[in-house]
Amino acid sequence: MLTLFGSVIALIFAFTRARKVVSFPVGNELMGKISDSIHVGAMAYLKRQYHVLIPFFVGMFVVLLLMAATGFLTWFVPFAFITGGFFSGLSGFVGMQIATKANARTAAACQTGLNNGLKVAFSAGSVMGFTVVGLGLLDISIWYLLLSVVFKLPVEDITSAMLTFGMGASSMALFARVGGGIYTKAADVGADLVGKVEAGIPEDDPRNPAVIADNVGDNVGDVAGMGADLYESYVGAIVSACALGVIAFNKIESVDRVNAVVIPMVLAAVGVLASILGSMLVRTGESTNQSTLLKALRRGTNTSAVLIAIVSLPLVVSVLGKEFIGIYLAILSGLLAGVLIGFFTEYFTSDTYKPTQHLAKQSLTGSGTLIIGGLSLGMLSTAVPVIIIAICVMAAYQFSGGFIDSTRGLYGIALAAVGMLSTLGITLATDAYGPIADNAGGIAEMAGLDPEVRKRTDALDSLGNTTAATGKGFAIGSAALTALALIASYVEKVQQVGGASVELDMSIMNPTVLIGIFIGTCLPFVFAALTMSSVGKAAQSIVVEVRRQFREIKGLMEGKAEPDYKTCVDICTKASLREMILPTALAIVTPIITGLILGYNGVIGLLGGATASGFVMAIFMANAGGAWDNSKKYIESGNHGGKGSEAHKAAVVGDTVGDPFKDTSGPSINILIKLLSMVSIVFAALVVKFHIF
Amino acid sequence: MLTLFGSVIALIFAFTRARKVVSFPVGNELMGKISDSIHVGAMAYLKRQYHVLIPFFVGMFVVLLLMAATGFLTWFVPFAFITGGFFSGLSGFVGMQIATKANARTAAACQTGLNNGLKVAFSAGSVMGFTVVGLGLLDISIWYLLLSVVFKLPVEDITSAMLTFGMGASSMALFARVGGGIYTKAADVGADLVGKVEAGIPEDDPRNPAVIADNVGDNVGDVAGMGADLYESYVGAIVSACALGVIAFNKIESVDRVNAVVIPMVLAAVGVLASILGSMLVRTGESTNQSTLLKALRRGTNTSAVLIAIVSLPLVVSVLGKEFIGIYLAILSGLLAGVLIGFFTEYFTSDTYKPTQHLAKQSLTGSGTLIIGGLSLGMLSTAVPVIIIAICVMAAYQFSGGFIDSTRGLYGIALAAVGMLSTLGITLATDAYGPIADNAGGIAEMAGLDPEVRKRTDALDSLGNTTAATGKGFAIGSAALTALALIASYVEKVQQVGGASVELDMSIMNPTVLIGIFIGTCLPFVFAALTMSSVGKAAQSIVVEVRRQFREIKGLMEGKAEPDYKTCVDICTKASLREMILPTALAIVTPIITGLILGYNGVIGLLGGATASGFVMAIFMANAGGAWDNSKKYIESGNHGGKGSEAHKAAVVGDTVGDPFKDTSGPSINILIKLLSMVSIVFAALVVKFHIF
Repeated sequence: MLTLFGSVIALIFAFTRARKVVSFPVGNELMGKISDSIHVGAMAYLKRQYHVLIPFFVGMFVVLLLMAATGFLTWFVPFAFITGGFFSGLSGFVGMQIATKANARTAAACQTGLNNGLKVAFSAGSVMGFTVVGLGLLDISIWYLLLSVVFKLPVEDITSAMLTFGMGASSMALFARVGGGIYTKAADVGADLVGKVEAGIPEDDPRNPAVIADNVGDNVGDVAGMGADLYESYVGAIVSACALGVIAFNKIESVDRVNAVVIPMVLAAVGVLASILGSMLVRTGESTNQSTLLKALRRGTNTSAVLIAIVSLPLVVSVLGKEFIGIYLAILSGLLAGVLIGFFTEYFTSDTYKPTQHLAKQSLTGSGTLIIGGLSLGMLSTAVPVIIIAICVMAAYQFSGGFIDSTRGLYGIALAAVGMLSTLGITLATDAYGPIADNAGGIAEMAGLDPEVRKRTDALDSLGNTTAATGKGFAIGSAALTALALIASYVEKVQQVGGASVELDMSIMNPTVLIGIFIGTCLPFVFAALTMSSVGKAAQSIVVEVRRQFREIKGLMEGKAEPDYKTCVDICTKASLREMILPTALAIVTPIITGLILGYNGVIGLLGGATASGFVMAIFMANAGGAWDNSKKYIESGNHGGKGSEAHKAAVVGDTVGDPFKDTSGPSINILIKLLSMVSIVFAALVVKFHIF
Repeated sequence: MLTLFGSVIALIFAFTRARKVVSFPVGNELMGKISDSIHVGAMAYLKRQYHVLIPFFVGMFVVLLLMAATGFLTWFVPFAFITGGFFSGLSGFVGMQIATKANARTAAACQTGLNNGLKVAFSAGSVMGFTVVGLGLLDISIWYLLLSVVFKLPVEDITSAMLTFGMGASSMALFARVGGGIYTKAADVGADLVGKVEAGIPEDDPRNPAVIADNVGDNVGDVAGMGADLYESYVGAIVSACALGVIAFNKIESVDRVNAVVIPMVLAAVGVLASILGSMLVRTGESTNQSTLLKALRRGTNTSAVLIAIVSLPLVVSVLGKEFIGIYLAILSGLLAGVLIGFFTEYFTSDTYKPTQHLAKQSLTGSGTLIIGGLSLGMLSTAVPVIIIAICVMAAYQFSGGFIDSTRGLYGIALAAVGMLSTLGITLATDAYGPIADNAGGIAEMAGLDPEVRKRTDALDSLGNTTAATGKGFAIGSAALTALALIASYVEKVQQVGGASVELDMSIMNPTVLIGIFIGTCLPFVFAALTMSSVGKAAQSIVVEVRRQFREIKGLMEGKAEPDYKTCVDICTKASLREMILPTALAIVTPIITGLILGYNGVIGLLGGATASGFVMAIFMANAGGAWDNSKKYIESGNHGGKGSEAHKAAVVGDTVGDPFKDTSGPSINILIKLLSMVSIVFAALVVKFHIF
């Protein structure tokens, strides 16, 4: 009930923030018109995306119904699958609605000052953050109440059914991330290659036919994609912790197992309150100085984190009892690991630190050395988060009593992920306002506002890059921990459906496990390859179209004729929807086929290999991409010859390579590793019954 | 004894080939002089390298002696370690001696025809191939005879001691590959960036101060590095198979365990004879047509492979008995997997196939899209070898009886690696002649020979690229299989030294194993990052020096003054030796520290994770690099605008990025994954006694 309450509070808070955003003025007529075009383009994309997804979801629903009819699943699973997908999609939809409303308003607010702009953008970001959190808790609490009160299921069946709606959320999130990621980067790369490099016109110039598509892309990729993505992370972390809680406290008589299930849900609900308090504090920052603004944002996120750290101690003690104080330490270690990974992500990718400054220097000897430098920086940067996660896993496992009973240790790892994501409301708010500021900058440029306005939106955007780095740290770290918890849930699921017939041998020296690890390790590489080449293909069709318009529309370059924005929007939409199918299908089909051939032991190897390799790849790609982006910005701010220099040209190449790295392939991998586990769990009974080895 | 005989035959064959090479004329005086400069530079590098390595080997020797004195090792280990390192180094040394003798002679022979050039270059390659094989078998058979006849050790102690001399060979190989790889690519990239791109002079132009360093690099990296590397692969595969043979046949009464140890050694010896017969056939190709030449080479390698496939059947049956015919099938599956991986490596990287042609096309939209395309191609190409290795592992495991007794299955996997490498004599010969032809081309250019000569050496070089792709397939495939065998040997070692106190729990759900997998997965990324950035750093110092000489030496560009080649050679030598320390140290220290913290279960996770991730990374980097290189060549041969076009400029950037990928980081990772296991085995007793978790 507290969870439902938290959910409602979050949604109400999101709603009041949304009303506040809408109350701001849109600015002049042209700004309203541009904002509308972006809104229309983004909605058209979403509409078409749903057209593609509905057959997929209906098809999967039928498959799951058939499996339920033949006894491989319970009847709740198909419906849980659908609600997970629906709410994940809804999170993205709401976030995008508000983002496309807020962009022109942020630009207009920036006319009167940097801080006013921040207010609008951050409020819109909060709408997104609290909608994700609110919908996530709503879905969880409704299902929990439905299954426990209406159907009176035993608690292990409840958590087992809830676990499977993660698959719906993950599928939806992967489609949204991959499709949106391809869209945004194809438009961005295509617009830049012809506009900036070939025609020599500035970024976001209204003469560029791909400029609206580029701004639509920010919304469908960075907003709708991210919303669906983090909805999935949030829900996945909570339900996997619930599922492991039942098992971990199975043998402990002093505590009702239900309490172990309640902990992650209540923790999340408390996190909502902490996030709301934190985001209130952000409003007090009134200075226009950027580092003061950053401090204001940080004050919000840090306060929320500290609040959670304090409140969860009495929470754990009162629900589970004093002897399980170690569980609290597990939550704390997750929270701390998230903060640390966030800090190191910032360290490796921000141009205020040495790594990116050093990378920028390598552009002096050309794009070749800059690319080598960025790849090398990204690969090297994987070591730190791996060590942090290693310590966090070990700490969470040990503190929660893993060396007494391994399931308790795994429950601790799952709770560490929930701890990390408990303040998602506010961390996502500080993350989501970045693309809104980016859009605002585009509108300011297209509407021909005072250059001072563009400077302010750029400052907001750049601030957003810093906070986004922290957000990425939480997303990647929690993905790894949740994936581990889901592997543990898979193992339990296999034992549950197979009973005595199951011969678990998860040893690395078992050849099926070993081969599974090899296939799993390879999977993120193949997935990254497919998504990257999709961006390349889609970008090339944009390049061809923009070149055509420059050639065929007379008076375009002189500003006398208007470009045909709509065709570019159409091309991006079609290309990204076509290209998102294969990678997502791969994620769904691979664990099933591997299972049917190698059996459940092979699947466990696959999941382990994919989690480790996916974690490392996601960090590598995110950090390399971020560092290239910021070294370009560093050069543009006047270093190494500034804009237009040879170093800058090299940096533009680096940024082009980095774009699909950090905004398409990298973040999708986070979802991939969880979806693999979710699919394995749903199809566990099938694999247990039919497998070759 | 047959092994010793095989070894002697190989060395005699190498010697006769060497005499034949030296009997060819060097060409004119200038060519002799250039060849001498290269020889002197290469020898200076090796001499300095040994200066760096001697303290390392002495230090390790003392550490191992101390461990032997305190009972953590047997007394043979320190000495075995030294001989492994010595023979590995010697393989590189001999290969380089003959390569620097053969380069000018190949150029001279090319004056009279393509086929004569092939004859010299291939003969020199054979010297290298058969020296590696001969020295490997010599080391193995001498130690075997010494321990069995002189010291009369029981057979399991023999194989256990022999296993540890792999660590010496691997350490040496890693130093040689990393140091040589940094050297060759720093010189190459540095020379190209200033010479080709900035000053606009052709490749290998004598006015370029880094041109001698570039040619020295081909020898120290591609010849000496590869020799040491493949010596290590060959020896590692054989000794790990021997070690597992003892254990696998422990419980089988019908067969003497010694026979299981003998199989891999005899198989290798038979492989020598098959390789010699095969390389005889290469001599018969007399046409100057390139595809006919390729056929001649292929006839050699294929004949050797078929011979081995035929002969090993009666061999296995007569040594082990009819009921172990499955062992023969394991060997066969290794041989086949090597051929298939080689074919797919060629498919993904040769410009006669679609992937590289498609990649070349992406250079039309600039270096950014070309880089994305190459990374994507490399990542995608990892799927095929992973599937091949998966099937090979499963087949070898099952055929050799792994589902009856797992150690027999692991023995089968190790034998698959030996089968794959059994024809190393000839595959290495077809691989090693490439850099010799490359050097010959450089000499032809510098000595101002008829352009027709350069065309012929280029044809040889390009043919070498094709055969090198096959060679790479064998190297990567065998590395994965050998690494798996070594993990199994580690597990046995832990049980042997720890006895009843050992609590093996290799389950993926054991948190120490899990964390080990994460660290292991990350390791190849960090290793690749370090080696790539080393190339970048060393290349930048070359760029600075070459720019300085162009500026300060008057009359250099007009050809009136000679550049100072020696300084560039010096810079490369110093930089590569300085930069090789850290990556190699990382490979040695990580498994020891991981073991001391996480215990042997953690080490097993580390090794599993590193093997899977290293295999995938090695293929990714090798194929991406190869594809970039060949798409540059494809454009240079007149496609997409040919030399000097915008597409070509983009392709040069791709090639620059690909250079450290394919020649420094990629091949070093093959050694890394084996060295990790070797170090773990040697330090097993220490870890079993002292560990935290």
